[in-house]
Parts: sequence; C-alpha cells; structure tokens
Amino acid sequence: MTSADLTPQTPAPAAGASPEALDAILRDNFAPWIQRLGLRVEEAGERRTVLRLPWSDELAREGGGLSGQAMMAAADTATALAVCAARGGFVPMTTVQQSTTFQRPVSGRDVLVDVRITKLGRTLAFAEITLTAEGAAEPAAQATTVYALLG
Amino acid sequence: MTSADLTPQTPAPAAGASPEALDAILRDNFAPWIQRLGLRVEEAGERRTVLRLPWSDELAREGGGLSGQAMMAAADTATALAVCAARGGFVPMTTVQQSTTFQRPVSGRDVLVDVRITKLGRTLAFAEITLTAEGAAEPAAQATTVYALLG
Amino acid sequence: MTSADLTPQTPAPAAGASPEALDAILRDNFAPWIQRLGLRVEEAGERRTVLRLPWSDELAREGGGLSGQAMMAAADTATALAVCAARGGFVPMTTVQQSTTFQRPVSGRDVLVDVRITKLGRTLAFAEITLTAEGAAEPAAQATTVYALLG
Amino acid sequence: MTSADLTPQTPAPAAGASPEALDAILRDNFAPWIQRLGLRVEEAGERRTVLRLPWSDELAREGGGLSGQAMMAAADTATALAVCAARGGFVPMTTVQQSTTFQRPVSGRDVLVDVRITKLGRTLAFAEITLTAEGAAEPAAQATTVYALLG
Repeated sequence: MTSADLTPQTPAPAAGASPEALDAILRDNFAPWIQRLGLRVEEAGERRTVLRLPWSDELAREGGGLSGQAMMAAADTATALAVCAARGGFVPMTTVQQSTTFQRPVSGRDVLVDVRITKLGRTLAFAEITLTAEGAAEPAAQATTVYALLG
Repeated sequence: MTSADLTPQTPAPAAGASPEALDAILRDNFAPWIQRLGLRVEEAGERRTVLRLPWSDELAREGGGLSGQAMMAAADTATALAVCAARGGFVPMTTVQQSTTFQRPVSGRDVLVDVRITKLGRTLAFAEITLTAEGAAEPAAQATTVYALLG
Repeated sequence: MTSADLTPQTPAPAAGASPEALDAILRDNFAPWIQRLGLRVEEAGERRTVLRLPWSDELAREGGGLSGQAMMAAADTATALAVCAARGGFVPMTTVQQSTTFQRPVSGRDVLVDVRITKLGRTLAFAEITLTAEGAAEPAAQATTVYALLG
Repeated sequence: MTSADLTPQTPAPAAGASPEALDAILRDNFAPWIQRLGLRVEEAGERRTVLRLPWSDELAREGGGLSGQAMMAAADTATALAVCAARGGFVPMTTVQQSTTFQRPVSGRDVLVDVRITKLGRTLAFAEITLTAEGAAEPAAQATTVYALLG
C-alpha cells in the first residue's frame, strides 16, 4: 500500500482477527484489481496469517506459469491483513518496503501465502512471507515487508 | 516473472526495440491480469525504457490512492520489457529478486515507470526503476530488480 | 544502524553539512570496526552526499576483490551521513531496511559511494546509493535504504 | 561477495560440511576486515548453518548498540559458508543480492546467525537468515540473499 491510501473515509467497522473479518477488510479496502486475485483468508492469528491464492489462468503468463507480479501482490495484501489480525481489526497503514525472491515456478496449483509478523511496533511492522504451491515442500517465493502504521 | 514461465512454445517472433515491438511482447507474453494494468511503452532503448501506467480507479484502493501492488507489478513488467529492448527482441527470462520502496502516494495521475538497465550480463540482468506520478518532481516508488536470462 | 544506537549520551555538537562536519560525525558515532573502512566524505549536500572508500587489502578477499560486505557497510554509513547532511547536522536514526545488488567486481581501486536522498520525511528517510570504482563507467553495486529518524 | 572474488588461486582444499571445515574456509577466503568480526561456525548442515557473532565493543557504535553493518556482513558471510556446507566444501560464488531488515537493537550479547538455504540450484542459491541476540525470543534482523554459484 502507499501512504494514506487506506485511510477510511467512514469509520472503520468493528472487526476482529477472524478469517471472515479479514475477508471483509480485504473486500472493503483493496483495489478492484486486487480483488481479481481471488485471495481468501485461511487462517488468522496474532502472529501468523495464511491466505490462499487460487490458481487462475488469468494470473498465468504465456507458457502457463503463475506470474511473479501476482505473487508480489499476494504477499503485500496478505501482510496488510496479517497486521490487521495482529492488531485485532482494521488499521490504516502503508507499505514502506517489500523485497521478494522468486525461487520456483508454479503451474496449475493454488499458492499458500504464509505471513509471520516478526515485529509489531508502535509505528512500524515487519513481516516475512513464504509462498508455497499447495502440496509442495519448498517455497515458490519469499518476501520481507516493512509497513508504517498510521493509526 | 518466475522460472521458465516465459519460454515460448513457438519460436519468438522477430522483434526489435521499438515501443511497438515491446507493446506486442507485452500483449503476447504477460498474464491477462497484467494486461488490465493498461501499461503502454513510451520509450524503448538499449539502456533505458519508459512505460506509462495510466490512472484507473480499478487500481485504486478505498481512499483513492494507487495501490502499491500495481506499482510493483508495473516495475517488474517494465523491467522485462527493458531487457527485451536491450537485447533487441524477446528473450525468455525470470525475475530473481525485486526490492521496492514506497515513498509518496499517487492519486488521479498516470505514473511513468522509468527503467535503467545497469548491467546486462550473459545470464543475469540488473535494473533500477523509478516510478513517478506524471508532473511530479519526486518519485512515488523506486525498485531494483535482478533477472535471470534463459536464452 | 539499529534502533536507538545513535542516541547520543551527550548533546550532539553543533554541526553542519560540510564534509568536515560529516567526517567528525563519522568519527564520533560509528563503531571502531567501521572506522577501519577509512571512509572519507568527498561532497556533502542537501540531497546528495558522496563518500570515498579507499582501496585496502584489508577489505579484499582471497583472489583480490573488494568484499561485498565492505560495500554494504559503506552504503549504510554513507546514507546515515547523507541524512545528517540533509538535516544540517547530527540526527539520531536507525536503519530500517537495506537492499543491495552486486553487479561488478572491484579490484585495486577506490570506490565512490554516491548517495541521493529521495525522500526526507518527518519520521522516515529514503535513499538510493550507487557504488562505482573510481574511473569506471558502470556501478559496482547499488543499494536502496530506509531509515527511521528518531529526533 | 562480488564477482569472481572467491576464485581460488590454488586448488580448493578438500573440505566437508563440518563446522571446523567451514571455519577453515572462513579463515582462508574472507577479507582480513571480515576476520575481525570473530565469527565462529556453531552448526553446519545441508540445509541449515548457524554462526555466532561474538559481542565486541569494536562492533558497537556510540551509545553501545551493535552496528547494523556488522549484522549485514555476518549474514552475507554466513550465507557463503552455508552454501559451502550445502555443497560439501568450498565453492566459488558471488553475492547477487542481499535485503536486510533491522528490527531490534542488540547490546552486550552475542548474536546467532541462522541461515536456511531455501534453494540450491545449479547456478543460483537462495537463503533466508535470521539474526537473534543470544537468549532473545525475537529476531534482531532478518535477511534474504541470492548467490551466483561459479563452480
């Protein structure tokens, strides 16, 4: 996310750390283009949140592999939701930095986006994200992210 | 991009470094979801390639700011095209690493995605990318990328 | 730098953006191990600061190449000084994130560490750093950094 | 590391993945300035290698905190050794990219540098590194690295 983008124009609804609450935050706050990823929250917790990126030909490039751009977008979106889970509800925030390495191709399978919040400070949050094709032993991609918390 | 995704199943068409040739590579090789960004090649050169990310509400989150995910995806896509421009045509490749910092929000304006290839080796390419809202003096985001060249 | 490390125990001396003032900040605030890099400030300005990393066999590995670790350390140190230059004197700060790509080997030559501050916010600063062997046309390494400003 | 730096001028000695063998690789191949970190190999394995960065005032800045530069250098050095452990002996290589986030200050304590090789390809290796002050529950810093394998 980028600065101030998430500032709600209406008061944020009361929310919790449940997968359903996070799915609602995803639906209400992210760009329509991000909705097209079809991300779903599988687990939500104080330190760890997991999303599923369902396989879709829309996200695959010529040759059939999942685009790296979709994995970066899923990692960023999942971190924002993981921070909300860690704080117990919606919080305005902005991505400061994301670093991603691409290690293995994915084709025809959902990807699990596993976020671990490694520090939740007053103004900055840090996370590490591992993206793994469902059923695979090794990661497709890994990311680290830094977020600025605005509220 | 991720490993081997771009390997063409048919021989790559003869292509050049012209903006039109890069637009064709973009159209033929990238995911439908990436096509929705509406990226257009503005300049193409051996060392520098510039794309335009047109403003669209589809890419904006609640609050009206351009999503950081769209900027990361634009940076990655632009780098792939810049490498093609540097090599004079389509080349199969895969993103190895992308690091992005988000510095200023963008709202209601196109973004220019300016890629400079800083090294084009035999197997690895390096680039720096600056994303600037049209008319702005300072960058919205910056990225560095590393690509593995597969052909 | 890491959190709070730079908090001075005595009031920071009045300082300016001159190379001499930055050299004094370097000498007074950085670890003895960093002093061994022999960094010198060549230029200091509001938006751009340049340091010189003199060639030394102490920094070279078996085979004669400058160690990447020395380049990362030089980039971080130079950013901290560039932020001081931008603010007109010493400011306590901490490195939040550094991403570095290594593009070309360096052997037997000084390296110029060129820092451009791309955003100086109230609580966060962003910089891009290019490290180039003296006399070379192309970078040896590039980095982006994010700093938290604590005062 | 930077390109070709580690190319040995004499044949690499037969080595294994033992901590002692890695300590010898560290002593024989890294810069004198890196030797001053005092790093020691605690564990060595095919997928995971752990080094200890002993506390030293030489590595601390004004204020008493461990310098971030020392943590970046330790992470890079540890990854190179972890790749050697994974390959069963010395292998010439070069750092392509390192991203590091700094999350918590360290003062007066050793730091454990825990490297997990997440992919060991033919030409590229990927690792994630967690640096934790001894006895602490949470990381001081985290890094991801990409290496090019040259032999």
